[in-house]
Amino acid sequence: MKYISILGSTGSIGTQTLDVVREHAGNLKVCAITGNNNIELLKEQIIEFEPELCSVMSEEKALTLKKMLPKDCKTDISFGMDGLMQAAEFEKSEIAVTAISGMIGLKPTVAAIKKHKKIALANKETLVTGGSYIMDLAKKYNSQIIPVDSEHSAIFQCLMANEYRSVNKILLTASGGPFRGKDTEYLKNVTVEDALKHPNWSMGKKITIDSATLMNKGLEVIEAKFLFDIEPEQIEVLVHPQSIIHSGVEFIDHSTIAQLGLPDMRVPIQFALFYPERIHNSYKSLSLTDIGNLTFEKPDMEVFKCLRLAFDALKAGGTMPAVLNASNEVCVDLFLNKKISFLDIGNINEQVMLKHSSVKIDSIETILEAEEWTRQTIGSLMNIEH
Amino acid sequence: MKYISILGSTGSIGTQTLDVVREHAGNLKVCAITGNNNIELLKEQIIEFEPELCSVMSEEKALTLKKMLPKDCKTDISFGMDGLMQAAEFEKSEIAVTAISGMIGLKPTVAAIKKHKKIALANKETLVTGGSYIMDLAKKYNSQIIPVDSEHSAIFQCLMANEYRSVNKILLTASGGPFRGKDTEYLKNVTVEDALKHPNWSMGKKITIDSATLMNKGLEVIEAKFLFDIEPEQIEVLVHPQSIIHSGVEFIDHSTIAQLGLPDMRVPIQFALFYPERIHNSYKSLSLTDIGNLTFEKPDMEVFKCLRLAFDALKAGGTMPAVLNASNEVCVDLFLNKKISFLDIGNINEQVMLKHSSVKIDSIETILEAEEWTRQTIGSLMNIEH
Repeated sequence: MKYISILGSTGSIGTQTLDVVREHAGNLKVCAITGNNNIELLKEQIIEFEPELCSVMSEEKALTLKKMLPKDCKTDISFGMDGLMQAAEFEKSEIAVTAISGMIGLKPTVAAIKKHKKIALANKETLVTGGSYIMDLAKKYNSQIIPVDSEHSAIFQCLMANEYRSVNKILLTASGGPFRGKDTEYLKNVTVEDALKHPNWSMGKKITIDSATLMNKGLEVIEAKFLFDIEPEQIEVLVHPQSIIHSGVEFIDHSTIAQLGLPDMRVPIQFALFYPERIHNSYKSLSLTDIGNLTFEKPDMEVFKCLRLAFDALKAGGTMPAVLNASNEVCVDLFLNKKISFLDIGNINEQVMLKHSSVKIDSIETILEAEEWTRQTIGSLMNIEH
Repeated sequence: MKYISILGSTGSIGTQTLDVVREHAGNLKVCAITGNNNIELLKEQIIEFEPELCSVMSEEKALTLKKMLPKDCKTDISFGMDGLMQAAEFEKSEIAVTAISGMIGLKPTVAAIKKHKKIALANKETLVTGGSYIMDLAKKYNSQIIPVDSEHSAIFQCLMANEYRSVNKILLTASGGPFRGKDTEYLKNVTVEDALKHPNWSMGKKITIDSATLMNKGLEVIEAKFLFDIEPEQIEVLVHPQSIIHSGVEFIDHSTIAQLGLPDMRVPIQFALFYPERIHNSYKSLSLTDIGNLTFEKPDMEVFKCLRLAFDALKAGGTMPAVLNASNEVCVDLFLNKKISFLDIGNINEQVMLKHSSVKIDSIETILEAEEWTRQTIGSLMNIEH
């Protein structure tokens, strides 16, 4: 159980902090709250949360509040700066939520820091007015300051280590390729040249065709499953034509962390070579105001069948992804050589998968055999069809 | 010096890996490269990067390449699967970049894993076909797999711990408030009621007015400086009307990590209370496809003077931010009581700052004295003016 004090429990952040306490009643307990004049609300909060201490602005309000409470209520009622300080320093409390607004928050925050409390900082004035002085004080008293403001919390979260076990889902972005938004009717007649025109990334032929069919994204879904040890259901593919958000992770608390940058493969390559260090380079910086606009769409897995097949292959497991990959490799080659149509790629991949009985992989040989089987199967399919 | 092998140095990822090596010539050295048929390019790469080994597809190509190289060239020329394996297992090499495309990349990747190399993984087929088998193998041989694909690198980066010392700049987002895009002429006549209509967040009156003047963002800039120990020049304010990206960090390698979510303060509050743990909750998940569109603009610091004043106050240092904050507190109160106009808030803040001589903060008393001075100064300003 974590015990917390809330300085300013009747304001916007204060009441939302109590929402959080309600959501996590088994893990959080409020031991002290403070308010200003809204004693009606404080009364309700005392009855619901049973804090050991409640402080209000003035002695007069304290007396009125006391009268409003049931006889057997065990909450001590205090008031003024003394009351605020008592709440901030409350011994049992591990975290002081400084949800109080204005300069009045400064002294109790300093008091909580000196008692080595963690500070869930929502009082802007503490750092705006005290800056380095407060940060040095926190360091000296080993008091951790965790920002509550959504912006600073965002930055704080971007800088922390996020744990794999807290992943809710992975957001895998896709540019959507040259045929984004097109339907099956349109795709019937597209040429090799059409398919090779990728909007954002300059890449080899095979991967460019895979981007047009969304097979590339399908292969990435399969990779992500193994790289990050998650279930296929935890992978969401997002079409994001600007290719600025390169992908992201939603954690179990519904906070999402994403990585952004210009579409420049040198950045992830450098990252991989120097990991875990980040080092300077002369590449271009991302300017979101120059980009202006980031858009997102759901992928159409009926039109872009290859993406769906990747999820199917993952669910089948074993050699099925290897078969899909090998089949696709052959099909893209056939398409580039104008032996089959664009839509044939997905159709043949699907037929091959339907013919395959997946087996567990226990050596490279199993994979190579599955590949060989796939090439033979497509060979006979093509002989029958053509 | 980090020594690397590049399997597939003539392809798109391969040549960009060499760009990265060029950028970091003092820290990276290529000891082995492999290519397929493009021996013209391999020749150039050998002359520029002087690897100890280069492998090509066939014996015939190997012989032709040898003839094309200068007499004194020390690079060993090899070929076929044997050559690929030699490059993957190259003793001096710490990292194998698997930039080779197709199933042919599988065997050399496994070979590099077994030699405990780090794998900068760009060969999709390795995990698509080998999945768990490969990941288990990497674990067994203590070989780290670092994805190169921009999407998987993004996810990997979202999950890692990012170091404060690698921060290039902070991207602090702002909704822009109710008067986003308006000019000074329009703002002359806005009322308290207009200013209290915030588009995204439901908050107290003071902070809602501060959102309308962008003073709130200014105060956050000041907080961010101290929370994250950075220079004011490293903070970029971005107007982002949808309030989905709550803020982000650009690192020195030009990779940006951002935190996203619906505008729901309970998420950062919960985060602060349970940090460093993330825990489940019943709050709504962000759906970027439902949102559809994220936009970004530069803030207008001439029209929204308060934001500029915050940067000025930070540069002045000492008590100046405390003075700006106190002055703004008084001005917002005067505005809410219809004693001054909306634009007066910024104008009075500016006048007060001009009158103040900043001093170093060494105690809370210094801050409280600066506040008292500010209230008196505004008092006399108002007496003169009205």
